[in-house]
Amino acid sequence: MYVHETRTRVRYVETDQMGVVYHANYLVYFEIGRTEYMREIGLPYSTVEKEGLFFAVSEAQCSFRASARYDDVIVVRTHVQELTLVRLTFAYDVRKDEAGGEGKRLADGSTVLVCLNRDGKPTRIPDVLARRIAEADAGKKRHEEGP
Amino acid sequence: MYVHETRTRVRYVETDQMGVVYHANYLVYFEIGRTEYMREIGLPYSTVEKEGLFFAVSEAQCSFRASARYDDVIVVRTHVQELTLVRLTFAYDVRKDEAGGEGKRLADGSTVLVCLNRDGKPTRIPDVLARRIAEADAGKKRHEEGP
Amino acid sequence: MYVHETRTRVRYVETDQMGVVYHANYLVYFEIGRTEYMREIGLPYSTVEKEGLFFAVSEAQCSFRASARYDDVIVVRTHVQELTLVRLTFAYDVRKDEAGGEGKRLADGSTVLVCLNRDGKPTRIPDVLARRIAEADAGKKRHEEGP
Amino acid sequence: MYVHETRTRVRYVETDQMGVVYHANYLVYFEIGRTEYMREIGLPYSTVEKEGLFFAVSEAQCSFRASARYDDVIVVRTHVQELTLVRLTFAYDVRKDEAGGEGKRLADGSTVLVCLNRDGKPTRIPDVLARRIAEADAGKKRHEEGP
Repeated sequence: MYVHETRTRVRYVETDQMGVVYHANYLVYFEIGRTEYMREIGLPYSTVEKEGLFFAVSEAQCSFRASARYDDVIVVRTHVQELTLVRLTFAYDVRKDEAGGEGKRLADGSTVLVCLNRDGKPTRIPDVLARRIAEADAGKKRHEEGP
Repeated sequence: MYVHETRTRVRYVETDQMGVVYHANYLVYFEIGRTEYMREIGLPYSTVEKEGLFFAVSEAQCSFRASARYDDVIVVRTHVQELTLVRLTFAYDVRKDEAGGEGKRLADGSTVLVCLNRDGKPTRIPDVLARRIAEADAGKKRHEEGP
Repeated sequence: MYVHETRTRVRYVETDQMGVVYHANYLVYFEIGRTEYMREIGLPYSTVEKEGLFFAVSEAQCSFRASARYDDVIVVRTHVQELTLVRLTFAYDVRKDEAGGEGKRLADGSTVLVCLNRDGKPTRIPDVLARRIAEADAGKKRHEEGP
Repeated sequence: MYVHETRTRVRYVETDQMGVVYHANYLVYFEIGRTEYMREIGLPYSTVEKEGLFFAVSEAQCSFRASARYDDVIVVRTHVQELTLVRLTFAYDVRKDEAGGEGKRLADGSTVLVCLNRDGKPTRIPDVLARRIAEADAGKKRHEEGP
């Protein structure tokens, strides 16, 4: 299974008066994760939309484990948890970026996306996307198995 | 069971380039729902914080059913789904405000809150809150049972 | 001159770790002000866009005078400062809603809007909008002059 | 004069139904610009706050020149325009990141910051900040003059 990793830095606007990142912003971090995942497999979401397909979030779930603070660098790890003809489920793991090992877990969760055409009607996930995800997952496995 | 109802109007900033409300904003609508719920039962959250208690979201879940658009008035219905010594779960139902009956369902979901003290340590939900919620739920039942 | 007044309540998401409203949110409060102004003069902005005209902000300016806090009710006063064939300038005054008189000033500022057609090209401000603004301003003057 | 440059990528959440970046987000891009400027001169704002000083925005101004879109990489150029005992003015220039030369200008503007202590009272800009800014501005000049 391919796990994509990207980093972002907490902005001041993302904090709230509790002094930590406001919880809804993790859904935005998830968005960054899947945007970069799709770019990495060669199907940038901006290109997908230009071709007339839209991925709308139909379910979102997040567990908040620890607090991120202003100026923290966070790591978003994204992988595809499930892919059917009409639904694409990404899972995310958000950690603090810490030197010398795996950072503290801040949150994890998932989002289910459905594919819509220009008229907003549900439509099949394009084959090319399914193929690229399969290739990414397979490639990663081969890499992990080593020579 | 007491179901609190409040309304808000979709802001331009809340839309995205798909022409509808960006999904993470529903967590903000949920926040409005529980803020007004707590005010209604006599314990405004702003007062709670001044007394040194903080409710942090530890879990959030949302199913997106239909799209809200700019300038739509939406109705957020909030009730307490579960209350334990340390966790408070609100459930929400977000609908379009439509004349002559129940509006189209846009989203529903829930958030689990934990109570923290000034040091950020988990602490018991205050008794007064448990009592007020029980009163609200009971009051509503009595009302529903009628004379 | 017609000054429209609308109220909104500060959301938790709008605060930052300084414990006050994050400054960029005042531009959102301005947006609420002009949205309600336009509804009041009979030309809701949502209708304007459906007819193929878009008002894009080309300049924004804001002076921050005092801090708003979570759960404060704020008053946004909006009027048209200038109207030319191609530019519409709104001015705003944001205050705390306080009983028994004029609340503390939180911020004031202005935004210049230009009118675009569906292709994103600048176009003339529609006559009906100019007329409605003139009527609103005149009506208010008449009212102020009184009998 | 030292001009700091940083890049960020437009997020989906930052767009609105006009299909472009919602204007208030440029104030957030400005925030990213001055955050990175301060880190570069050795005074990360997160450290400044830990030492009990807060920089609050007292004025903001922005001219919007062209539209940024989802997934665009933008360049934020930040410099100090004016520094007095109590006010620090940053100026910003936001461009599209385009290969082979200077990208299209999207927006420019400025923000005035005042320094507050823990009690929210205005206080003098710390000497070390003034010194570091002067060094940065001078260093850049020296560099530009070359040997």
